[in-house]
Amino acid sequence: MTKKDKVKVIPLGGVNEIGKNMTAIEYKNEIIVIDCGLAFPDEEMFGVDIVIPDVSYLIKNKDKVKGIVLTHGHEDHIGALPYILKQLNVPVYGTKLTLGIVETKLKEHGILRESQLRVVQPKDVIVFGDVKVEFIRNSHSIADSCSLAIHTPVGIIVHTGDFKIDFTPIDGAVMDITRLSELGKEGVLLLMADSTNVERPGHTMSERAVGETFEKIFSDTKQRIIVATFASNVHRIQQVINAAYKFHRKVAVCGRSIENIVEVASQLGYLSIPEGMLISIDDIGKYPKHKITIITTGSQGEPMSALARMSTSEHRKVEIVKDDLVIISATPIPGNEKLISRVINQLFKKGADVIYESLADIHVSGHACQEDLKLIHTIVKPKYFMPVHGEYRHLKKHSLLAQKLGMDESNIFIPELGYVLELTKDSAKFNGNVTSGQVLVDGLGVGDVGNIVLRDRKHLAQDGILTVVVTIEKETGSVIAGPDIISRGFVYVRESENLMEEARNIVKRALDRCLGNNVTEWAALKSSIKDDLREFLYEKTKRKPMILPIIMEI
Amino acid sequence: MTKKDKVKVIPLGGVNEIGKNMTAIEYKNEIIVIDCGLAFPDEEMFGVDIVIPDVSYLIKNKDKVKGIVLTHGHEDHIGALPYILKQLNVPVYGTKLTLGIVETKLKEHGILRESQLRVVQPKDVIVFGDVKVEFIRNSHSIADSCSLAIHTPVGIIVHTGDFKIDFTPIDGAVMDITRLSELGKEGVLLLMADSTNVERPGHTMSERAVGETFEKIFSDTKQRIIVATFASNVHRIQQVINAAYKFHRKVAVCGRSIENIVEVASQLGYLSIPEGMLISIDDIGKYPKHKITIITTGSQGEPMSALARMSTSEHRKVEIVKDDLVIISATPIPGNEKLISRVINQLFKKGADVIYESLADIHVSGHACQEDLKLIHTIVKPKYFMPVHGEYRHLKKHSLLAQKLGMDESNIFIPELGYVLELTKDSAKFNGNVTSGQVLVDGLGVGDVGNIVLRDRKHLAQDGILTVVVTIEKETGSVIAGPDIISRGFVYVRESENLMEEARNIVKRALDRCLGNNVTEWAALKSSIKDDLREFLYEKTKRKPMILPIIMEI
Repeated sequence: MTKKDKVKVIPLGGVNEIGKNMTAIEYKNEIIVIDCGLAFPDEEMFGVDIVIPDVSYLIKNKDKVKGIVLTHGHEDHIGALPYILKQLNVPVYGTKLTLGIVETKLKEHGILRESQLRVVQPKDVIVFGDVKVEFIRNSHSIADSCSLAIHTPVGIIVHTGDFKIDFTPIDGAVMDITRLSELGKEGVLLLMADSTNVERPGHTMSERAVGETFEKIFSDTKQRIIVATFASNVHRIQQVINAAYKFHRKVAVCGRSIENIVEVASQLGYLSIPEGMLISIDDIGKYPKHKITIITTGSQGEPMSALARMSTSEHRKVEIVKDDLVIISATPIPGNEKLISRVINQLFKKGADVIYESLADIHVSGHACQEDLKLIHTIVKPKYFMPVHGEYRHLKKHSLLAQKLGMDESNIFIPELGYVLELTKDSAKFNGNVTSGQVLVDGLGVGDVGNIVLRDRKHLAQDGILTVVVTIEKETGSVIAGPDIISRGFVYVRESENLMEEARNIVKRALDRCLGNNVTEWAALKSSIKDDLREFLYEKTKRKPMILPIIMEI
Repeated sequence: MTKKDKVKVIPLGGVNEIGKNMTAIEYKNEIIVIDCGLAFPDEEMFGVDIVIPDVSYLIKNKDKVKGIVLTHGHEDHIGALPYILKQLNVPVYGTKLTLGIVETKLKEHGILRESQLRVVQPKDVIVFGDVKVEFIRNSHSIADSCSLAIHTPVGIIVHTGDFKIDFTPIDGAVMDITRLSELGKEGVLLLMADSTNVERPGHTMSERAVGETFEKIFSDTKQRIIVATFASNVHRIQQVINAAYKFHRKVAVCGRSIENIVEVASQLGYLSIPEGMLISIDDIGKYPKHKITIITTGSQGEPMSALARMSTSEHRKVEIVKDDLVIISATPIPGNEKLISRVINQLFKKGADVIYESLADIHVSGHACQEDLKLIHTIVKPKYFMPVHGEYRHLKKHSLLAQKLGMDESNIFIPELGYVLELTKDSAKFNGNVTSGQVLVDGLGVGDVGNIVLRDRKHLAQDGILTVVVTIEKETGSVIAGPDIISRGFVYVRESENLMEEARNIVKRALDRCLGNNVTEWAALKSSIKDDLREFLYEKTKRKPMILPIIMEI
């Protein structure tokens, strides 16, 4: 190693945003990618299903990319894999459960066979050449989650991944704080740490607290119990199973994603379900109500989820009846409050009792709060710090937290997507940036929905569209058919016949004027129609529908 | 009064929903309307500006309607007045500040002159014939708010309006609990009470708590302070002014709605601003930063609000600079979380410090929590109870709260919009229902956007539209021009030329087939084109754009 040796750290997702976490670590001819997540579209991305990172930089440097290392199996860390692997088929490293979930995903996309999945265990070190990646057990709201230590020739980079500190985790596998301390003692060049909960004071509660609440609820209830939670929260599911077992209830699982996870997690040994306890959702009618627990999806009120369909009597297998007890074991992700509220209202209307966030301890977060973050900063003692996984407000607050612990502001780097943090043994600085951003997935289309399409969808959503068609004989410049005006999403035509008739006259006048003046540039004609009609409609309705003039030339 | 005398209570808004509060009280030939509010469109109501109650029932019974009594001046209680008064010009009763705000509104809609606004004071009793309405002072997040006692021949109905119990209100005018107790002693037939905060245990904090926090923040800050809050929260504005006064700062007000309220409230004596303290927003540059406080709108992150525009440097008069302190003195209304978060991120990026909900006591609710509700139920001691102002979950929880206090479930009536609660001296039952619901306001259109238009807007938002135009000679059945396909909001055409070319071929084949078979019913032809194209596009893209075939006949 020379003094000029450099490592580049390039966040390609998960900074200044929630989701699509991805970071590239580059040293000479090696690039290691940490995580490959998706994000959910924001409310302005009409029709978009998911959002994935722009990986142009990785594609451009295809030969350098040695592998993708995964911290854990949540969608915002693995969800973009099926799309990225199609362009960049490199080995993927992760723990058993993480890759179990990835497998299901790749199978659905029909690319499992050609993929290279490599199972690792906590404490494993993967050697990629000059760069080595060490997996370090942590705690999170999914089992088998890891932090990473990336050993590079210029120094050690610790990436926490998503984490919390749970001294009493459900699987007994406590976060390897000792190893982080050792690394801290050895000397860590850069810490990248989860900022999700940096606004919350205190410590994050242990997952076990939820189990205690479940036991109390189960012991008090003589009715059927339906628990909705995140499919991937295997520990939460385990705790529902434990409570059900204690109070002699059977458990049925309902909802495609949660059925998948329960199957994968059971097979791999991450869920322990006593013999004979799991029953098919088809058989719930065979047992009395007080012997049944249903674990289901829909804790975010997603309209197509099992719980939402149960709440509107659209579920084929579960009908909510009076006195059912529904536990929504989750907190609303910002933006989902109204959806959840709708489901809760419908459940109450059906006579169910519903326990949701206002009752404490039916959910705990999977992310470290302020005091937990302080512990990590203190033991890792990094020279430089880059807050990750959060919107700007979180990154900024995380920077302030580090400063309170004594770090100099000049040693803290609040990143932007694509910024290149250049590290040497004794320096760090942002130096340039690479192509980065978001790629929108809509149906089968990856990236074919861009700003123009979104702008049009927004315009259409707001005020609808008026299509104006006219057939014109080119030689004579005379109107052969039309103008016809067809509107969609603008007004209910039957009730606005006069308005539409007037609009037609506006178009006719524009045509007469232009054709009378021998305008034969259809573009000019179209823009006259558009302008006149827009002005007329805005005056009459204060709305601005999209106007689409079409001229058929014969 | 005979034993058969009946009073009808008909909620026309504000039950099973948040907003557009309105209730009709009917006795023989008199209808008194309580409140006349608007609601904000939900996320599926694309392009809709506001939602108002369907008042068909009132219009049908125009001659009976004697007046509208207003509990307070919030949008969800007065916002529909400009629209309803145009159809039903009856006297409107309210306190001075309430009608001051209404006046501004009616002026904007150009109907102030013909309106009949009648100012009342707390303790006033308005006699409408057999029905008398008594105004009773209460506390809420707007000054001059009232509960109502409606004295009818069959008994007294108490309607709390929106309220909280604040023993130390800013204006010193404490809720008239004594009068409610007297009424309770006299005997109340029906209580209708605010359910907004029924899920929250304990008491609602006094507005004064916020003032204490402001003082602390102001005393610690040497920078410019910008406070965003609800325009109508006059007490909150007063407290900002008090803190500014104490720490020798000038105050500038920024944002149209808050400028209006400050003007009205000052004129009417609800705001007391020391001489020379209020400066124009144009003059903020004339004072050092530590001498300036700006009170502004945008506490909900509304994209067009003053604060949002400041955060993106689009505000003409205020530029956020490093170290500005922004206080967002409000909690997010469900659904607004992401908008607010966006503004907070942008403010932080500009180098401002931002204090928002996570810091306690910069906002308190205007609605009664559980213990406050219990007090009201206990002193009013109604025979019957109808929870109002809330979604179903709130109404249900409020019913449970009343039952815990000893009320029989059969005496509690959870309403639906338009349900008629029929009261006699000693009975109550739901009996039938009247037309009710929501009327959507979009631009100048009131009610012209209905389900079909909304469904189309949703479809257009999701996948865009493909317009297919073809000109056909009717006699020969031959295609003279086209087919042309124009897409908007579907794919970016330049990148999807092949797809569009294939789509054109699909349409050509459908045309050939139909015209070859002498199909001359254009409806049949259109539906062939639609079906073939839909199937093709779904297979290729898994999307379902709207398809609009247009046939021009010559």
